[in-house]
Amino acid sequence: MTDIEQLKEKVYQANMDLYESNLVIGTFGNASGRDEKSGLVAIKPSGVVYRELKAVDIVVLDLKGSIVEGDLNPSSDTKTHLELYKAFPDIGGIVHTHSTYATAWAQAKRPVPCLGTTHADYFYGEVPVTGVISDSAIKKDYELETGSLIIDTFRSIDYRHMKAVLVACHGPFTWGVDAAEAVSLSVTLEEISRTGFFSVTLNPSFENIKKSLLDKHYLRKHGPGAYYGQDVNKSTFKDE
Amino acid sequence: MTDIEQLKEKVYQANMDLYESNLVIGTFGNASGRDEKSGLVAIKPSGVVYRELKAVDIVVLDLKGSIVEGDLNPSSDTKTHLELYKAFPDIGGIVHTHSTYATAWAQAKRPVPCLGTTHADYFYGEVPVTGVISDSAIKKDYELETGSLIIDTFRSIDYRHMKAVLVACHGPFTWGVDAAEAVSLSVTLEEISRTGFFSVTLNPSFENIKKSLLDKHYLRKHGPGAYYGQDVNKSTFKDE
Amino acid sequence: MTDIEQLKEKVYQANMDLYESNLVIGTFGNASGRDEKSGLVAIKPSGVVYRELKAVDIVVLDLKGSIVEGDLNPSSDTKTHLELYKAFPDIGGIVHTHSTYATAWAQAKRPVPCLGTTHADYFYGEVPVTGVISDSAIKKDYELETGSLIIDTFRSIDYRHMKAVLVACHGPFTWGVDAAEAVSLSVTLEEISRTGFFSVTLNPSFENIKKSLLDKHYLRKHGPGAYYGQDVNKSTFKDE
Amino acid sequence: MTDIEQLKEKVYQANMDLYESNLVIGTFGNASGRDEKSGLVAIKPSGVVYRELKAVDIVVLDLKGSIVEGDLNPSSDTKTHLELYKAFPDIGGIVHTHSTYATAWAQAKRPVPCLGTTHADYFYGEVPVTGVISDSAIKKDYELETGSLIIDTFRSIDYRHMKAVLVACHGPFTWGVDAAEAVSLSVTLEEISRTGFFSVTLNPSFENIKKSLLDKHYLRKHGPGAYYGQDVNKSTFKDE
Repeated sequence: MTDIEQLKEKVYQANMDLYESNLVIGTFGNASGRDEKSGLVAIKPSGVVYRELKAVDIVVLDLKGSIVEGDLNPSSDTKTHLELYKAFPDIGGIVHTHSTYATAWAQAKRPVPCLGTTHADYFYGEVPVTGVISDSAIKKDYELETGSLIIDTFRSIDYRHMKAVLVACHGPFTWGVDAAEAVSLSVTLEEISRTGFFSVTLNPSFENIKKSLLDKHYLRKHGPGAYYGQDVNKSTFKDE
Repeated sequence: MTDIEQLKEKVYQANMDLYESNLVIGTFGNASGRDEKSGLVAIKPSGVVYRELKAVDIVVLDLKGSIVEGDLNPSSDTKTHLELYKAFPDIGGIVHTHSTYATAWAQAKRPVPCLGTTHADYFYGEVPVTGVISDSAIKKDYELETGSLIIDTFRSIDYRHMKAVLVACHGPFTWGVDAAEAVSLSVTLEEISRTGFFSVTLNPSFENIKKSLLDKHYLRKHGPGAYYGQDVNKSTFKDE
Repeated sequence: MTDIEQLKEKVYQANMDLYESNLVIGTFGNASGRDEKSGLVAIKPSGVVYRELKAVDIVVLDLKGSIVEGDLNPSSDTKTHLELYKAFPDIGGIVHTHSTYATAWAQAKRPVPCLGTTHADYFYGEVPVTGVISDSAIKKDYELETGSLIIDTFRSIDYRHMKAVLVACHGPFTWGVDAAEAVSLSVTLEEISRTGFFSVTLNPSFENIKKSLLDKHYLRKHGPGAYYGQDVNKSTFKDE
Repeated sequence: MTDIEQLKEKVYQANMDLYESNLVIGTFGNASGRDEKSGLVAIKPSGVVYRELKAVDIVVLDLKGSIVEGDLNPSSDTKTHLELYKAFPDIGGIVHTHSTYATAWAQAKRPVPCLGTTHADYFYGEVPVTGVISDSAIKKDYELETGSLIIDTFRSIDYRHMKAVLVACHGPFTWGVDAAEAVSLSVTLEEISRTGFFSVTLNPSFENIKKSLLDKHYLRKHGPGAYYGQDVNKSTFKDE
């Protein structure tokens, strides 16, 4: 298999894992991946039913959006993915879903607070929510501008330690070293969004957990001092 | 297969899809379809357990309610379906369920607000709720009057762009070009009713999304400017 | 098969249906049935894991609580069942569960309001909740007194049209012509308790549906004017 | 099989039961067991995916934390388990999960109130929540100090009758005579946390059930006067 064939296979698999994780209904949701060498991006085709999806249907594009391989239209969210790949050089995979609880926070225009160690194990603080997209951005190039909106939100946030965002009135995006990590983080984001919903209902005067506890949990899994798991020196990003 | 046999088969399949989507419990819920040429309507028989339903059990009626084919009593909601077919000439399928979250909004006598793009992709604005049916309507011809109540609610709403309604104190109805689309919209309605429930709990001072965002999402999937999916010029209704 | 063997088989099947309906966890929950001729009652043994239950394990007792057949201890709730069989002569089956939403209402010491037609199709009004059992009743004969508490609650309610109750701080009981109907009503009670929970959260100033709508739905399924289903003259109780 | 092989097999099975009970996602959660004779503890390895776990992967340690058997790193929560085994001499199994509803209460820093008999059948009163771990404890030896925090919380609570705790901003721990009982109690704790959530939402001015009802239910299953189940004289702890 060539690198591109491998990428298509991995992106196909990530999309199917996404489907089986019950985070998508109908044709909602998409996963993409980037080939490190060539910089090409593979993404789910638009509006194709998951159970009929095949690896050969995966569309390959360059970062400018020109189709390199594939007979189908790419996901309507393709430009959002491409913007993120351009702005976040270390990432190799992106996932977008409309999963119930993460979407509920996005529709409520609220960040998911960091209320416990499950959250802190994966996301370094509260998961941010963008502002509502402007009328001019909607008119200009909606999907590209959705990418810009996310990038603006991360001006003062390190995308390598906060690998998720909620787009207001829309839903979540997650990313990682590859499409598989992005899928896995979408699953975790949905779970902490769900637990967070019940937590804030039980305690409306909640606060984010303190910095010392956040650091303890996030850093025991990430970075040079990590000691969780079997390969304690692994790090998700090379320059981390 | 004759046109009517095909219709019965499709309506049977729609009812089974409805059952497998977990939107119905017991014998609640029903799907019907209309044959375009003859104008005849096929519907689930009343009170039959889904797992024992067969295509041959599907009842065929004309718009006046006279049974053309079938040995069983048609669904007790048949007159509601017939009223809608008469008032909404473009529709070819109707589904009624008591699905949990859509019914919760109907029982709360509240429309489902349009809080995000998942909703806007399928329903052009908030999903309306009827008033409570009057005592005289209950006494006169309850199921027919339930149809009239829906039709009244749509006096200033285009049924071709809002293919769902909540009947107050009762539950949801959806419709579309055929029974399959109506089933699919029942699934989507339940999901947006569910996400909407969590959203308004997290943000009680919510507002519907702005018109520009609603238009962007609804119109990228529907009508002449659509660009979502693989067949970008498709339109669900012929005259759309 | 003798009448008693048939009863044991039916009660065994009802308990397994209860288990498969996900209304019980662990060994919680039990179904019983009464043989019309002999008046004997068959019930699940105490503390037996459902997946290991066999028809031969079902315990048969007379109304005084003497064991007629069976080597195992009967359910610890047996006396509650027997009190109900004595007080409610028309019933042939009883089910007790700790199903989540019905139990939540019972623990909140609130009746399940009748907010819609799904509820009205099966239960003729709000599902009542008992008072909290008295200290003296707890000390005297707890399970028997739980039965008395239910019977007291039904002094002004017809048990033939309200086949369910919530025992405060405990959970639901349902009954019917046989154990199978009682199981079916436990499933429906859980569903309306669930939908009711979301409804009152969305509309805290809710009211029960009006009498005309309640009558229309309940009576189109029950009693001499029923027209729902295929056997419109059926009635669940003989003297109804 | 030696005693240690048997322990590893039982701890492996407990971890798989935990996984199949849907209380864990990803690699969250762990079960351990103690061999009565040798006092050795067997625990899940750190960060291993459940579906790839094998009995041979289970790590065996002494109470000081020295590895006796196993090639993998033990769970990162091992020191918490060991502290509890040292402080609670009668227990033979411990389980830690991040199950949704129990974690929601832990993140809300609230005990799970005892609102009904389902709760009272298993837990003798409200399930306590610890204080938030101090900064100095986080810096010193985080996982060991989490154990100390639990032990502090139980100064005036009998761990033999309250076999569960919520660690604030973290999640639940349960224990019992062996790993299997601890798993079973984690399942029950999640269920009462869930039912409790809906109960307090329906009745925000709730109170714990009265002492007489708590005693009646807890003591009919535990201790010398127990009469629930088939072996009425059993008691979970030998000196109970």
